[in-house]
Amino acid sequence: MTDVSPLAPAGFPDLPPIAGLRLATHAAGIRYAARADLFLAEMAEGTTVAGTFTKSLCPSAPVDWCRRILAEGDGTARAVVCNSGNANAFTGKAGETAAALTAELIAGELGVDPVRVYLASTGVIGETLPEEALRSGLPALADSLDNANAETWSDAAGAIRTTDTFSKAASTRIPGTAAHIVGIAKGSGMIAPDMATMLGFVFTDLGVAPDVLQVALSASVATSFNRITVDSDTSTSDTVLLFATGEQIDDEISSTDDERFVDFQTALDDVLLDLAHQIVRDGEGATKFVEVAVSGAATDEAAEIIAFAIGNSPLVKTALAAEDANWGRIVMAVGKAGQAADRDNLSIWIGPEQVAEHGVQFHDYSEDRATAHLQEDEVKIAVDVGVGTGAASIWTCDLTHGYIDINAGYRS
Amino acid sequence: MTDVSPLAPAGFPDLPPIAGLRLATHAAGIRYAARADLFLAEMAEGTTVAGTFTKSLCPSAPVDWCRRILAEGDGTARAVVCNSGNANAFTGKAGETAAALTAELIAGELGVDPVRVYLASTGVIGETLPEEALRSGLPALADSLDNANAETWSDAAGAIRTTDTFSKAASTRIPGTAAHIVGIAKGSGMIAPDMATMLGFVFTDLGVAPDVLQVALSASVATSFNRITVDSDTSTSDTVLLFATGEQIDDEISSTDDERFVDFQTALDDVLLDLAHQIVRDGEGATKFVEVAVSGAATDEAAEIIAFAIGNSPLVKTALAAEDANWGRIVMAVGKAGQAADRDNLSIWIGPEQVAEHGVQFHDYSEDRATAHLQEDEVKIAVDVGVGTGAASIWTCDLTHGYIDINAGYRS
Repeated sequence: MTDVSPLAPAGFPDLPPIAGLRLATHAAGIRYAARADLFLAEMAEGTTVAGTFTKSLCPSAPVDWCRRILAEGDGTARAVVCNSGNANAFTGKAGETAAALTAELIAGELGVDPVRVYLASTGVIGETLPEEALRSGLPALADSLDNANAETWSDAAGAIRTTDTFSKAASTRIPGTAAHIVGIAKGSGMIAPDMATMLGFVFTDLGVAPDVLQVALSASVATSFNRITVDSDTSTSDTVLLFATGEQIDDEISSTDDERFVDFQTALDDVLLDLAHQIVRDGEGATKFVEVAVSGAATDEAAEIIAFAIGNSPLVKTALAAEDANWGRIVMAVGKAGQAADRDNLSIWIGPEQVAEHGVQFHDYSEDRATAHLQEDEVKIAVDVGVGTGAASIWTCDLTHGYIDINAGYRS
Repeated sequence: MTDVSPLAPAGFPDLPPIAGLRLATHAAGIRYAARADLFLAEMAEGTTVAGTFTKSLCPSAPVDWCRRILAEGDGTARAVVCNSGNANAFTGKAGETAAALTAELIAGELGVDPVRVYLASTGVIGETLPEEALRSGLPALADSLDNANAETWSDAAGAIRTTDTFSKAASTRIPGTAAHIVGIAKGSGMIAPDMATMLGFVFTDLGVAPDVLQVALSASVATSFNRITVDSDTSTSDTVLLFATGEQIDDEISSTDDERFVDFQTALDDVLLDLAHQIVRDGEGATKFVEVAVSGAATDEAAEIIAFAIGNSPLVKTALAAEDANWGRIVMAVGKAGQAADRDNLSIWIGPEQVAEHGVQFHDYSEDRATAHLQEDEVKIAVDVGVGTGAASIWTCDLTHGYIDINAGYRS
């Protein structure tokens, strides 16, 4: 169960520094022994912030905290703290108190206002965060701050892991600037649309006004983290935070009409999609990385719903695990999605192989060729539902004995 | 994989005859070797009919056929034919032709109108029904008709099975009459609300007008077959048909205001809920029969949605398989359901053991006692979401290695 996913990237990427950013990790013993379970990023004064959060109606205390300071604040942030091993969710008043204490302790160490300290927690639900571990661990965490560099990035991406089998990070340079975007993320199970159990912390040394930063983040999340599914479950804690220090630009991007905005948005899309794909590649028990592309739907939203019906279907996912071209299960999933589809004008492809056309098996379909595609690590299913021009892709993985092994024994 | 489910009833029930009903089965070799794969019931003239069908937008040819003859007919039926091994779904024009041929061949044998012959097919999707097997098998099927009795009922329940590990039937006598209700059903995977992959054929020798019969059937299905889930998938073929021969009553029930209607509805509810529970007990790989009872929701519909969010969650279902009182996963599922719930007024029980109250762990919660309940074959999870008076129960099973074994290798 601690084996690295067979779909993992070859190695952890070499990440650039971000000007105005320092990182720290610390082993506070919140749940795990002998590994870092606290992560801190400190950002330069004037750093702007944007965030997206779980749509769960039972959100964790840190999610409540972040939503509040984001809504009530001036759009700037000075730090983000994350612990792994305990989600601080469904912990009532004690959870609120622990969240506030975390922000206050870090704020005290850094000499900043607690409402500029963002929080995230991931791990088991329903247990109170141990106050003593916070009181001793958080000052030690702050003491170990160091510039963002290859080593501190790697430590940070490791500290936020729970059942992840590899650390996740991605970066890119923003064209025409000296600025970069770097993101780290965690997540491997309880992944579904609307933010699932995943955390993402993304940093840029470009300068972007808070409202513009939020527009960019929301758009990127919609087509990356919100387009992946491992098991259709959605966590209480999902959080993506984006911070812009502004240290690598003279004047910030203050409007989406700014000609530099498109390059920023594109770069952000690339980093978030890369991170989202890595989470699917670490799907619990996954042996296949699967793209489901739906076209011909009434709208893009309808295409997304149909794609998720396919990507979340246990029968489709077990057939993928078996490398079985049982395309009847794809028809079943299209049928149950509840979105307009013309059964008699449906086309299906498994990889490059056309399986069905006009609602019946394609005249030249070869199950051998379809099976050969399914034997690859990376699989694509495409469906045209024959009613319009709406299209969407989502990414998922197969459902294997490994998923059962991990989840029928595990406590985060 | 052919082992009988550990949750199966002790044996096949002893079923009474239904006056005006004859049954037949035959081994036509449609897909399976050396077992009956055709089922026929012939009903007396004047038999009334009601039906409910899959909500899949890619329904099978037999579903299209039944919907049409039910809508266009006079509410009477003379026969129902079912084959197992091939769903006749996603088969285009050839599927329509095969359905019509089946009805015509049986109608010819019985000397009735084809539009009084109902159809159902279950099995693999996307393959054309073999015409030769129909042309040779259906006359032989009709030739073997015999009165409904313990043996023919047992044969009938066997002939409609696909991956079922046991035959499913239930019966009851309608109080104050000599009439009975008998139902047979099949289904073990691809089971989800809105009729899933299941077939049910229910017969009574009471007399009930077609519109009243439909009201009764729709009501019973809503709280039985539509309240169960095995894997959240929905098939293209689900069909429940109810036939009333009227042979054990002088005057039919022609209004829901008839004082005899309540007893009929109650008896029908009992038979359908019994059949629905048997389908869950045969859930692919199931080792636990699980009731999820939600109360305190805004409406009954909201309670049902929340209950299904819990009952379909792979994380909840794997925790049940592991007998792990990981109630954080229940909170997660409530949170993702998208229905009003008050996180800080949520209560949870595992069996008789209260786990959570007012959004935090219950003061007297014992994980040992909760675990002891989860070690039983029959498990109950209850959740009060604290916002209203809506309530609903659904039934589901756990998610085990057995499910993966069956579905990562199986072709119906």
